[in-house]
Amino acid sequence: MSKVIPLKWKAGELLILDQRLIPREEKWISARTHETVARAIESLAVRGAPVIGIAAAYGVALAAARPRASRSSVLAAIDRLRKTRPTGYNLFWALERMKDRVESKNSLSATALLSEAKAIHREDALACDAMADAGLTLIENVESVLTYCNTGALATGGIGTALGVIRRGVRTGKICEVFACETRPVGQGARLTVWECVQDKIPVTLICDNMVASLMASGRVDRVFTGADRIARNGDTSNKIGTRGVASLAALHGIPFHVVAPSSTFDPALASGEEIQIEERDPAEVTKCTPGLTELKRVSIWNPAFDVTPADFIHSIITERGVHRPPFDFAR
Amino acid sequence: MSKVIPLKWKAGELLILDQRLIPREEKWISARTHETVARAIESLAVRGAPVIGIAAAYGVALAAARPRASRSSVLAAIDRLRKTRPTGYNLFWALERMKDRVESKNSLSATALLSEAKAIHREDALACDAMADAGLTLIENVESVLTYCNTGALATGGIGTALGVIRRGVRTGKICEVFACETRPVGQGARLTVWECVQDKIPVTLICDNMVASLMASGRVDRVFTGADRIARNGDTSNKIGTRGVASLAALHGIPFHVVAPSSTFDPALASGEEIQIEERDPAEVTKCTPGLTELKRVSIWNPAFDVTPADFIHSIITERGVHRPPFDFAR
Repeated sequence: MSKVIPLKWKAGELLILDQRLIPREEKWISARTHETVARAIESLAVRGAPVIGIAAAYGVALAAARPRASRSSVLAAIDRLRKTRPTGYNLFWALERMKDRVESKNSLSATALLSEAKAIHREDALACDAMADAGLTLIENVESVLTYCNTGALATGGIGTALGVIRRGVRTGKICEVFACETRPVGQGARLTVWECVQDKIPVTLICDNMVASLMASGRVDRVFTGADRIARNGDTSNKIGTRGVASLAALHGIPFHVVAPSSTFDPALASGEEIQIEERDPAEVTKCTPGLTELKRVSIWNPAFDVTPADFIHSIITERGVHRPPFDFAR
Repeated sequence: MSKVIPLKWKAGELLILDQRLIPREEKWISARTHETVARAIESLAVRGAPVIGIAAAYGVALAAARPRASRSSVLAAIDRLRKTRPTGYNLFWALERMKDRVESKNSLSATALLSEAKAIHREDALACDAMADAGLTLIENVESVLTYCNTGALATGGIGTALGVIRRGVRTGKICEVFACETRPVGQGARLTVWECVQDKIPVTLICDNMVASLMASGRVDRVFTGADRIARNGDTSNKIGTRGVASLAALHGIPFHVVAPSSTFDPALASGEEIQIEERDPAEVTKCTPGLTELKRVSIWNPAFDVTPADFIHSIITERGVHRPPFDFAR
């Protein structure tokens, strides 16, 4: 269990913890329309592939509960939510499930759609528990681990994916030390993972992303656990920008690199990671912490939000179904 | 040539461009004592291994010009300056040279010490020119390069080490595109390299440090040029934290990784990089751009300022004497 909760459904509204303000402030956004949910996803008020899917599902339920809602207005809401962010697959998976529900009955049932959203939420929490158990089977002694971005309760409907394994590992004494990478430019590690660890009394050491090689060379990291935003059939995994570098360095140092993600992250349409669309975001995310930089002329900024880790660098992929080892073949 | 100048000697005072304020503001510190110089080095107002050596040499000249200066007061000043920063070798090299000068004569000559400091400054500028010429012999066609930290005019007495090669490469049409890494936590790339490139009309694209793997995988980087803070006899090179990761990724992608540094960076006492002392700095450097982070309890921060790149990852080391290729043996 975690004290941290990113979303709450409360009698006709979705309360969204504004993750842009963490760790400075805990403020909740009240979403009563799918449009508010869509904007919360776009602006990163809510982020993390699994919880984006859950939030979007509740967004569809909100659209269905509107006065004069119709099948076509709900399908339009699904289309709107689909356009919020391109890379993470759980969003599309959850919206597809909601769409099936809309289309499976003759008349629109707001109640049925809310039940479906709640089911998606609950199933994700159960998947987190199953992943934590599966992940811990990999650890024999007491280990020190590295994680990247935020993959905890803030990013899911439960205790988290990679951070869920770590949380349970700390609780059971299998993990003694956790290194969190800053995760520039948005700082999901420095802001969210650190805050979440503090809430749940997980001992954490923050490093800058460029310190990973040095840390690994020092022998202080036994294992890496990260999440995923979309996984292709061959195991190529897209995740937060920087993951590919961490995975490459882990391979170079002989440190096992594990991806932890629910099966809603798997995109069966993609043969490999080359087909994954990588979102590029506002350069202001990069320039924000350097006063005076935006006043300079003729500076270009490249700000991809994700990268693709080739399956070759991945020791195993942990889902709620267990530990999958290479060669990966996730065709369904 | 560069429009950028980090130090100016002016009738009894050393003017130091306060690099902590760049790119926001151009402000000069007036140093009339070696203590002011020492504090400018400690606080990173002046940084970059070669220019730290030059600044320290002027610091000794300032100590010698004080009323009632004596050999022992100047040797004490040298000791003070020696304690400013531990990793970069040029500081110790320059102070040793100044100390030899103090000890080589029967009486203390402030004029002779100022001449020596100016000679160190001038020789570094000439070394930069020679390194730029040597570095460009490696480039056959028109290339796109990546650099790390700041190794330009701001870091040296001339046009720079790695950025000197790049500056001249852009001028001569051999380099068409320059990627600069942010270089967390102090941002020498985002703040200093970007600013310096803008001053000298060098086209630059800024990326976060964690985007290097993705950029290299995209095929957009032909070569990496970085500087060095201390080089052991076997070619192991300490440089700004993050360099090891960039070098590892370059090796993995088959991209040549070049170190550019004057021979004052070579520490003949060290057999390998394992013996290099790595400076750890204030965690506040890391937490500064994350509001609310310092209020959290039980968060530890690791902030090493340098790392060591093993010689295995280095394609060549470029000094004012030419291009050195492995196996390296810098015994003198």
